[in-house]
Amino acid sequence: MTLIALPLSMFFQAPLALQSGASIRAYNLAYETYGHLNADKSNAVLICHALNASHHVAGVYAGQENSQGWWDNMIGPGKPVDTDRFFVIGVNNLGSCFGSTGPMHTHPDTGEIYGADFPVITVEDWVDAQARLLDALGIETLAAVMGGSLGGMQALSWALRYPTRVANAVVVASAPNLTAENIAFNEVARRAIVTDPDFHGGHFYRHGVLPQRGLRIARMIGHITYLSDDVMNEKFGRQLREAVNHNATGYRYTTQDIEFQIESYLRYQGDKFSEYFDANTYLLITRALDYFDPARTFDGNLTAALAQASCKFLLVSFCTDWRFSPARSRELVKALLENKRDVSYAEIDAPHGHDAFLLNDARYMGVVRSYFDNMANALVSRPSV
Amino acid sequence: MTLIALPLSMFFQAPLALQSGASIRAYNLAYETYGHLNADKSNAVLICHALNASHHVAGVYAGQENSQGWWDNMIGPGKPVDTDRFFVIGVNNLGSCFGSTGPMHTHPDTGEIYGADFPVITVEDWVDAQARLLDALGIETLAAVMGGSLGGMQALSWALRYPTRVANAVVVASAPNLTAENIAFNEVARRAIVTDPDFHGGHFYRHGVLPQRGLRIARMIGHITYLSDDVMNEKFGRQLREAVNHNATGYRYTTQDIEFQIESYLRYQGDKFSEYFDANTYLLITRALDYFDPARTFDGNLTAALAQASCKFLLVSFCTDWRFSPARSRELVKALLENKRDVSYAEIDAPHGHDAFLLNDARYMGVVRSYFDNMANALVSRPSV
Repeated sequence: MTLIALPLSMFFQAPLALQSGASIRAYNLAYETYGHLNADKSNAVLICHALNASHHVAGVYAGQENSQGWWDNMIGPGKPVDTDRFFVIGVNNLGSCFGSTGPMHTHPDTGEIYGADFPVITVEDWVDAQARLLDALGIETLAAVMGGSLGGMQALSWALRYPTRVANAVVVASAPNLTAENIAFNEVARRAIVTDPDFHGGHFYRHGVLPQRGLRIARMIGHITYLSDDVMNEKFGRQLREAVNHNATGYRYTTQDIEFQIESYLRYQGDKFSEYFDANTYLLITRALDYFDPARTFDGNLTAALAQASCKFLLVSFCTDWRFSPARSRELVKALLENKRDVSYAEIDAPHGHDAFLLNDARYMGVVRSYFDNMANALVSRPSV
Repeated sequence: MTLIALPLSMFFQAPLALQSGASIRAYNLAYETYGHLNADKSNAVLICHALNASHHVAGVYAGQENSQGWWDNMIGPGKPVDTDRFFVIGVNNLGSCFGSTGPMHTHPDTGEIYGADFPVITVEDWVDAQARLLDALGIETLAAVMGGSLGGMQALSWALRYPTRVANAVVVASAPNLTAENIAFNEVARRAIVTDPDFHGGHFYRHGVLPQRGLRIARMIGHITYLSDDVMNEKFGRQLREAVNHNATGYRYTTQDIEFQIESYLRYQGDKFSEYFDANTYLLITRALDYFDPARTFDGNLTAALAQASCKFLLVSFCTDWRFSPARSRELVKALLENKRDVSYAEIDAPHGHDAFLLNDARYMGVVRSYFDNMANALVSRPSV
């Protein structure tokens, strides 16, 4: 049976205090829910999204066959996160460009489009906003919070900020913070956007233009880091887009036109992205990634930082992920074990790099399925109060 | 004793046929020489440069204390490549922006600046141009040809195109061709340049502007790939440029300003580069990298391709080099051994990534020194004809 998704929105009038010291008020959060909340409201699962995703996690919109949610292979009826047993909530983060209040919306105090004046948002801010959404939905405790990559950082942050409200945190292909190299890639992408003459200091909306050149470059860089070297070689290798016969090598000998298939792929990804993604959102989200570092206020001691968490954990990493390598997940596992927390950890030998967290891998899906099955069985066997 | 370098230039009138089918005539090659050519002209060593380097390999220019050549730690009196024993030649490649004829020079037929009309140049074309320079210098045979990275590709190409003119090829931190990921990084850098509105299709000289935005991005991307993740973490980690006191994290919470030291470093490198490097040269050189693939005309069979070489080889790679990983050097070693060639190979456990080939590492320097010492001793013991 096809799961039909319905986009919802919740309005919040009360100001939300942000980590930066600023606050935001009169904002909407776009969200979706799948499955049914049980009588004791104990089966809710919150899914947190990464850079280029949204509240549309699973299912399709009515009449739109190809509108599958971004984690539809993972979440749905009979799937590893089974919506026949769990009430799953997808929420679009503040500052995004997919429905929740973001830089392209109007500042309620000035009547002007936020643009670059949208406040800087952190992972902790997102989690606080998500907690308010749960309050509004009448959900006190989550059976699980789950996310991959930046979404995994949110799941971890939930466990730290709201330890009594989370029973399980599922942190996939994530890290306790970004490395210098991770920040470096984010910074190059941001510079490409900010130095695009069409960016206009982040107020391009007023000028009727979009900094698409910069967004294209940003997305191309991103794509390189999502894939493994091996999978790129396997998919594209040194294949030419169009070989010519009169040169023994098949090369066309051009510096500006596409020669190799990998170039064609990257340009296509860049073009597509630049048509729908908001430039200010890109800056905000990459900064949220840069800033996330729960150990920072514990003098860099991750074990001390994670002592605040009390839930159970499932961590998953992928061997070929060089953006958030298994070593980073192992840091989390080690710090949680040092706190004597209940941790399951799977390191999946998948070839797809960071992207693997979105793809079908039997072992990965199996690990998540088992974890949620155990959780569901525990829910069912719980005596009613 | 300080080695004083003197920049020289050689003019070539006869057209040079290029791999693309085009040709170029009336060009200059900038070069420098260090040490003395012996009586039987058997001690010449040609040094080939990579992306951001030139003919100025060793020594300093008279009166300019801080003008050390780019491989001055490796080459000079008493150094691993000892200019007291070898006659070393540095040559700037065609299409470069450091003295040899390139895109910012005037096309002799049209009187216009070449710009984007400068012909596409390959590693093989550079080698052919270098061979002509040796002809003009009266040098038939090289004791060694040596280079790192793209320079190593030229050394390899010398061994294949002029097997009777090379006694030793020293190929450092190089590869038999670029991977899809290598090409991908080059392509993003090129797109940043080409889509800079100041690029004007490569004819920016006419407009009195420079595509500096694009060059900055290109250089930032390059720098990330030259360094290892580890060395970046060690040098920069998550250090802030300027911590503020009123936030517990020390963050300033800004998306466009510099927050982390790594951002400051990359912006500085990008700015510096954009002031002196030619955009068309960047396109040409990255394309030469993309195109290099000696096995291509041998159905991808590297062993068959390398059968043409007859010289001795020294190959060196660095464990943390993820741009040209040791695995790529091992492919070359394997193919040479399958051809029963005389190959020495050193895999150096240096932390610096691809950049290691330019840095001082005692083991690396020792390997090169021994190799050249043996070569020099063989020269000395050779009976005069």
